[in-house]
Amino acid sequence: MGTVNKKMDGSRVLITGITGFAGSYLAEHLQGYAGEIHGISRSEKWPENIPSHLQKIPLHTSNFKDSVQVASILKKINPTHIYHLAGFAQTGKSFTNTSEAWAANLGAPQILYDAIKKSGITAKVLFAGSGLIYGTAKYNKEIKTESSELMPQSPYASSKAAADLLSYQIWVNDGIEIIRARPFNHIGPRQSIDFAMASFSKQIAEIELLKKPPIIKTGSLSAFRDLTDVRDTVKAYAGLMEHGKPGEAYNIGSGKNIRISDALKILVSFSNTPNLKIEEELPSSSSQKDFELLVGIDKLNETLSWKPIFSLDETLSDTLNYWRQIIATTLQNPKESK
Amino acid sequence: MGTVNKKMDGSRVLITGITGFAGSYLAEHLQGYAGEIHGISRSEKWPENIPSHLQKIPLHTSNFKDSVQVASILKKINPTHIYHLAGFAQTGKSFTNTSEAWAANLGAPQILYDAIKKSGITAKVLFAGSGLIYGTAKYNKEIKTESSELMPQSPYASSKAAADLLSYQIWVNDGIEIIRARPFNHIGPRQSIDFAMASFSKQIAEIELLKKPPIIKTGSLSAFRDLTDVRDTVKAYAGLMEHGKPGEAYNIGSGKNIRISDALKILVSFSNTPNLKIEEELPSSSSQKDFELLVGIDKLNETLSWKPIFSLDETLSDTLNYWRQIIATTLQNPKESK
Repeated sequence: MGTVNKKMDGSRVLITGITGFAGSYLAEHLQGYAGEIHGISRSEKWPENIPSHLQKIPLHTSNFKDSVQVASILKKINPTHIYHLAGFAQTGKSFTNTSEAWAANLGAPQILYDAIKKSGITAKVLFAGSGLIYGTAKYNKEIKTESSELMPQSPYASSKAAADLLSYQIWVNDGIEIIRARPFNHIGPRQSIDFAMASFSKQIAEIELLKKPPIIKTGSLSAFRDLTDVRDTVKAYAGLMEHGKPGEAYNIGSGKNIRISDALKILVSFSNTPNLKIEEELPSSSSQKDFELLVGIDKLNETLSWKPIFSLDETLSDTLNYWRQIIATTLQNPKESK
Repeated sequence: MGTVNKKMDGSRVLITGITGFAGSYLAEHLQGYAGEIHGISRSEKWPENIPSHLQKIPLHTSNFKDSVQVASILKKINPTHIYHLAGFAQTGKSFTNTSEAWAANLGAPQILYDAIKKSGITAKVLFAGSGLIYGTAKYNKEIKTESSELMPQSPYASSKAAADLLSYQIWVNDGIEIIRARPFNHIGPRQSIDFAMASFSKQIAEIELLKKPPIIKTGSLSAFRDLTDVRDTVKAYAGLMEHGKPGEAYNIGSGKNIRISDALKILVSFSNTPNLKIEEELPSSSSQKDFELLVGIDKLNETLSWKPIFSLDETLSDTLNYWRQIIATTLQNPKESK
């Protein structure tokens, strides 16, 4: 793999959503390259599962409701690069917390762009959207390229689609150099159990430590997904920030598909508990139709020398080991358990 | 031209934005077909320039800020068909009144769809978006079909794009039968002078009645536009409501392009004032780049037997005559003038 980032000593990087899943990994990656790193988060402190060397990064608090407040943070930091990763990430929960999803996924970038204009800073921006904006395959097995029709299948996806198009329009009209990243599923340690691989891993760890009977409960297992290690995804973010063209959109994925049930099989094969049972609960609503998403990554490949370093086996093994550690620690310190 | 609507005696039609430009023409068209017509408007009364037979249509007031309030209107009317035409229509003003544009163009349909769910009514919905969501020609002279990439060039266009995708997603997840109309420029009598042809017509009428010197002030005249008579556009709305497929998007336009300067020439040729001067003020910002929009209308043609009835000459002549009457009336009743 070629180098996707060069040392940028004079740079001041700001990551919104830095305490989140991708945010913290991005910070970790950029610690090797950026001159200075700052974060914005809704929460005033780092979650406990974030490594202590990351917790030294200055954390600014904002809920992205007020562009004057965000502008004052921007003026203070005067960032040269902003990664906007803050958002409402759970597709499933976006059906019940719809207005929260729209506020976080569309409202926050609106406030951010407004704050950039108000503050007068000149920063390059990477907006982290989502590959889910393409939605279901209208034509089955159609490869989704950056110019494919947008067909969002959830409030999460439609709010991300709206913000992706907003980002384009702001670039056109206000000259803010915004690069639109459209990551597909990224997985790994520290991901919330709202996501399948994290949920499966946690359950296996609990079963191994006899915290629950040997039954893994799952949603639909028949869908196909492009699964990328979060540590690879954030490197693509950093690479696109350096080499991407403002105004343009870039898919981020491995370009390979795997059926969820096959990924689960890999996880199960890593377990030391024999005879694990799987209980699949099929979704009742038509809203969760399974589909095969084929991710076109030609544009990413033409732009970056990026390719995933982590194999799916490594990623899933790391994720399972992360949960083994979390569950073991919880057992040793039951007070921390919830 | 084939018939685009059949008599629907039992129908109860609701038009949001009924007091607006397209809204009032749609109401006029549907008076021949629908069983009952209701309107929602922000304003509590009809504008003075609306024909009196339309002013008999019951008008309900809402600013689309509260879905409970809209739901109570919906329950009372129990509409079988809803045309959602309410919105912020001025592209130019959307640059300065950005949050107002987003609230009207995205917030209002969010409230409407929420209100439909809350009220428990079963109505088919036509959402009036905009052909401007396709934006500038990335590839010059590219024909914009319904699956073309969305590249909005203004807050108006990005808020309409967001609502168009929202409408698709709500259909997928909530089963509300929404048809997405993507009209290109429609013009005619009663249009606001925020739009070029109305502004030119008003100026010519003022010049003819010696209310101003013989100079027509214009914005950039070099862009190409697909200009359709509003009376034809609303017939396409009604046709799509009947024959369109829920979830699908449909371009509405003539499929023909005309340079703004050539349309102005036609208007000038109708004037009885010789030696009209034209003063073109070119936009300073890159945001108003001229572009040639070629509208693909194959899908519309496959779905409807609609085609425009009004020639551009007729439309422009009617528009100019409308303004002649308005200016003459204002001169006779100077108190009404603003």
